[in-house]
Amino acid sequence: MGLNEDLVTLFRENEGEFLSGELLAEKIGVSRTTIWNHIRTLQRLGYEFAAQTHLGYRLTRTPDRMLPQEIASRLKTRFLGKSVHYYEEVASTNDVALELAAKGAEEGTVVVAEKQTSGRGRFGRKWFSPPGKNLILSLILRPPFLPGRASQVAITTSVAAAVCLRGLFDLPALIKWPNDIYIRGRKAGGILTELSAELDRIHHIVVGVGINLNMTRDEIPAHLRPNCTSVRIEAGKRCDRIQVAVTLIQELEKRYRGLLKDGFSHIVDEWIALSLSLGQRIEARSEGRLYSGCPAGLDEDGSLLLRLDSGITRRISGGDIRILSGSEVARASSP
Amino acid sequence: MGLNEDLVTLFRENEGEFLSGELLAEKIGVSRTTIWNHIRTLQRLGYEFAAQTHLGYRLTRTPDRMLPQEIASRLKTRFLGKSVHYYEEVASTNDVALELAAKGAEEGTVVVAEKQTSGRGRFGRKWFSPPGKNLILSLILRPPFLPGRASQVAITTSVAAAVCLRGLFDLPALIKWPNDIYIRGRKAGGILTELSAELDRIHHIVVGVGINLNMTRDEIPAHLRPNCTSVRIEAGKRCDRIQVAVTLIQELEKRYRGLLKDGFSHIVDEWIALSLSLGQRIEARSEGRLYSGCPAGLDEDGSLLLRLDSGITRRISGGDIRILSGSEVARASSP
Repeated sequence: MGLNEDLVTLFRENEGEFLSGELLAEKIGVSRTTIWNHIRTLQRLGYEFAAQTHLGYRLTRTPDRMLPQEIASRLKTRFLGKSVHYYEEVASTNDVALELAAKGAEEGTVVVAEKQTSGRGRFGRKWFSPPGKNLILSLILRPPFLPGRASQVAITTSVAAAVCLRGLFDLPALIKWPNDIYIRGRKAGGILTELSAELDRIHHIVVGVGINLNMTRDEIPAHLRPNCTSVRIEAGKRCDRIQVAVTLIQELEKRYRGLLKDGFSHIVDEWIALSLSLGQRIEARSEGRLYSGCPAGLDEDGSLLLRLDSGITRRISGGDIRILSGSEVARASSP
Repeated sequence: MGLNEDLVTLFRENEGEFLSGELLAEKIGVSRTTIWNHIRTLQRLGYEFAAQTHLGYRLTRTPDRMLPQEIASRLKTRFLGKSVHYYEEVASTNDVALELAAKGAEEGTVVVAEKQTSGRGRFGRKWFSPPGKNLILSLILRPPFLPGRASQVAITTSVAAAVCLRGLFDLPALIKWPNDIYIRGRKAGGILTELSAELDRIHHIVVGVGINLNMTRDEIPAHLRPNCTSVRIEAGKRCDRIQVAVTLIQELEKRYRGLLKDGFSHIVDEWIALSLSLGQRIEARSEGRLYSGCPAGLDEDGSLLLRLDSGITRRISGGDIRILSGSEVARASSP
């Protein structure tokens, strides 16, 4: 951690209190001049301090930015998020993370950005997010898996994301297979997983998470409005984006460690409990074909197990699902 | 194609004949001075010409190098090998191809090298090859598959490699699962497949092929000698490395196009006919566990189907197999 992180951590540990330059200098082991210089740097980043003669500084406002020192000062994990790369603007956090990973960045490295100029979702679809409003975060993982199990990591991340939103905001967040986050029938987030691998082993996985947090209804492009929402819209208040990032990373690390140690079945149990489509009739488009039936679970490779009307259970490995409305179900089952 | 390629092609189409500077200049559409300059360039690359007043040039010797113009002038394919990147020395042709692919190199791009400084095989194992002796070649493919089918491309490449060596040298080349090339019980080649993918689609696959061609017994490191061989050792004569590259690329393109059009089953049929282990008892080490039984075929994802002694057929998705010797089989089946 750098000096900025240390300073922010000290102010956070002593919230509401004045800390003198002498005290800060002593705690961190640098000169008072260095402390002052870093206070200035933090101010430029949007931190505000009340300063009082003899008493020192009190932190009065933290900027609404995904700054590494903010994440670091609150994060309680063993390896995930120990290194955070922050960008005001980037083409795509996944691209940056893939480059970092190819150069050997350590497992758990996180890339965050306020804005993506070419954010994307699955199948190269565009992912829209106004700057500074949402969560745009990519993580580097190196599970000792065969590549066929890469989907397990994406599924695990979707569970962590849904659990995070439920825990923090008491929202009915659900997962639409494979790993979209929905709140009250509207999409609030998505996960884009990319990997570099041999046939026998994964070099690295990059899991990109996009969650709509503080975007207002007006900020959603008109054509997306019917199917798209944000935590702010659903919870009725702005949220602390750092808190979401920290909670997500913590929930993910816990489950990822469980996945490595105990396998996929616990994750599947959680996923099923959080699944938007379980118990409903759906239509799945996969490799150019269309299937309809009822989801029956997840396979070891993250494939959706779809019980077709014929009674056969089919594995859906890629593509999309659509939940059939009541009238469509009636039509589909009529003779 | 560049001017070097055009020149070599012209000489090759008129093998044994003298071609005048005027004729070459006219055919290619450049000045005689340009032709002369390029003849000098080819000479520097190791080409030899007989020159005779009034008659012009006759190509008398082609260098034993994997030069793009040599490959281009003989290759009859639609897309594979249309662009060849040549290196005297490179860390690993797979690394170069992965970089080119990430930058958008077109499907079918080939990277060849005389020497690799960090050649590798599966599981990060070292792949040894003295410079200028063997075939070191990587291909970029972009099949419209789910990543789980990437193994099919590796299997297809191994079939093309075995067919190539059989056709050119009448050698009993066989494939050891998943995709090593063996001749008379010794390893002559290997394939390292790497991919960049999302969970739903492959960005690109790089297939690296290493085949021992003109390496002599003495050039094989002593500790590898018992299990390693080359085409030269087995066929009793040096081979034309360009011819091997061209034939391999052609055999692969034919099968790859078949794979995209008709699926995997024809490839599996060929693979079975060329399989070293079919009909033998083997031991498979996969994800830390050991299984023994008889290979029964290939699954859709390239997994080996292993019929265990219990009668259950198990999919072996990664790892290695070892063919059990007669005495080991006897021990394994004794009560």
